[in-house]
Amino acid sequence: MKLVAFTNPVSGHTALGRLNDEDRVEDLSSVVGDRTLLQTIDEWERLQPAIAAATSLPVVDVDHLRAPIPQPRRNLFAVGKNYRDHVEEFGRSGYDQPERSGALPTVPIVFTKVPSSVTGPYDAIDPHRGVTSELDYEAELAVIIGRGGRGISRQSALDHVWGYTIINDVTARDLQRDHQQWMLGKSLDTFAPMGPWAVTADEVGDPTRLVVSSTVNGEPRQHASVADLIFDIPELISVISAGIMLQSGDIIATGTPAGVGVGFTPPRFLKPSDIVECSITGMGSLRNTISGPA
Amino acid sequence: MKLVAFTNPVSGHTALGRLNDEDRVEDLSSVVGDRTLLQTIDEWERLQPAIAAATSLPVVDVDHLRAPIPQPRRNLFAVGKNYRDHVEEFGRSGYDQPERSGALPTVPIVFTKVPSSVTGPYDAIDPHRGVTSELDYEAELAVIIGRGGRGISRQSALDHVWGYTIINDVTARDLQRDHQQWMLGKSLDTFAPMGPWAVTADEVGDPTRLVVSSTVNGEPRQHASVADLIFDIPELISVISAGIMLQSGDIIATGTPAGVGVGFTPPRFLKPSDIVECSITGMGSLRNTISGPA
Repeated sequence: MKLVAFTNPVSGHTALGRLNDEDRVEDLSSVVGDRTLLQTIDEWERLQPAIAAATSLPVVDVDHLRAPIPQPRRNLFAVGKNYRDHVEEFGRSGYDQPERSGALPTVPIVFTKVPSSVTGPYDAIDPHRGVTSELDYEAELAVIIGRGGRGISRQSALDHVWGYTIINDVTARDLQRDHQQWMLGKSLDTFAPMGPWAVTADEVGDPTRLVVSSTVNGEPRQHASVADLIFDIPELISVISAGIMLQSGDIIATGTPAGVGVGFTPPRFLKPSDIVECSITGMGSLRNTISGPA
Repeated sequence: MKLVAFTNPVSGHTALGRLNDEDRVEDLSSVVGDRTLLQTIDEWERLQPAIAAATSLPVVDVDHLRAPIPQPRRNLFAVGKNYRDHVEEFGRSGYDQPERSGALPTVPIVFTKVPSSVTGPYDAIDPHRGVTSELDYEAELAVIIGRGGRGISRQSALDHVWGYTIINDVTARDLQRDHQQWMLGKSLDTFAPMGPWAVTADEVGDPTRLVVSSTVNGEPRQHASVADLIFDIPELISVISAGIMLQSGDIIATGTPAGVGVGFTPPRFLKPSDIVECSITGMGSLRNTISGPA
């Protein structure tokens, strides 16, 4: 099932919808009331049958899509340098820590994005001129946790996954480098376009068969299989949950493949009017324009 | 004014209280209803006069104190290597990034703690055996934001401060080092004891006259003036708010002075039954015991 959050064009409120096969959004308000996707995931076992069975729902225009989880309950977990080719390009770029450039990490590099950085799948990205001059994109598969837990084993990890979505882990490379810890350069307002849909785990099946890709102004930039993750999804869930109780609705962005702007020589940073698209097989595409005068 | 959150011993609910001069807690429920401190700060201008004027309130035992903000709305902002002597000890320890050891940062190193790491001022700290074997303490002055904003200037920064509290920025040094990005080693459950009080900015006055200190089992470990911060509070607010809209109730832990366990040779990590106290002049003390068998 593909769920979306959309703005009701009449009331201005955000409601939950289901994407049907014709890429139309069916308004689920009559089934879930005013629950957000977060609240729906909390009660998933009880609500899922009614959501799946609902018919003859009002249809809404997909233009009004918001991020499926527009206000996460806490920070997004994110993983750095988790595709081999990206580790190499980031090492070469000079933006990595010098003594670690190009070296494969031995444990996942887990960092965070402030939850307020989330924005919609088709919303504008603020280039934050005067704060950064090195705006970059990172297409990523993001995991949405269903059942929480601590000390989750690799073996049972996928049982805790509710579903998946796409995140563009937008990054200010200068801030990422200069502040050493990445949170600031990863968390500026609008730096986490999310969506367009939240796809349930059963519909995705084996996530390692997914392909993550991105384009800038239509030019292909990133393209890699999730099977190439250095630390796979079960490992990430196991490592993060070892000491942090995972909660329903938590989001883990799993890392980005090679092909980001800073990987080019010279770097190809984003500028106003650029259009970045981040796509994953069967999960749709984010399409965000950099705002501001060109 | 000193505000606290306490568990009502009868209902089990958390309520807001005011610490009076006799170190007794006055129950503010009749003034603020069931508002949390976060919600009270949101409406501070309207509620403050009634809170200040309230008399003849029921008195509660201070044993029941919780963290003043037990559930922050998003991650805690925190700052690394912000006291000169601590930069030196951390550099010597071998836990810092080799090429940066001992070098003063040129911009604030802003990292984050997951909000669920917050625990009460007298609660036990979980040593997370099997996850870390290098448990350490960091006494810090934390700023509580009142009025939010983006692009806040140094000059107006203190106008955005609602008040202050103490945070023990508990750290798993092995995770901090091995995962490179600090979030994970800083965010295990119970790794952010907070309190015991939230003290309003007008009562604190000039924060640079405050002294931050800590002891382990009564033995003095840290002791420094907030005036020694490399990046002062206005600078931190200005840097973080440059691209991230600060919100009412946001918390910024300002960094820790020299004297942490990893600064000793050999390191003196915390072990079960150890009692850590973190104190700031006029703001009380956190007193947390490491749980588990000695």
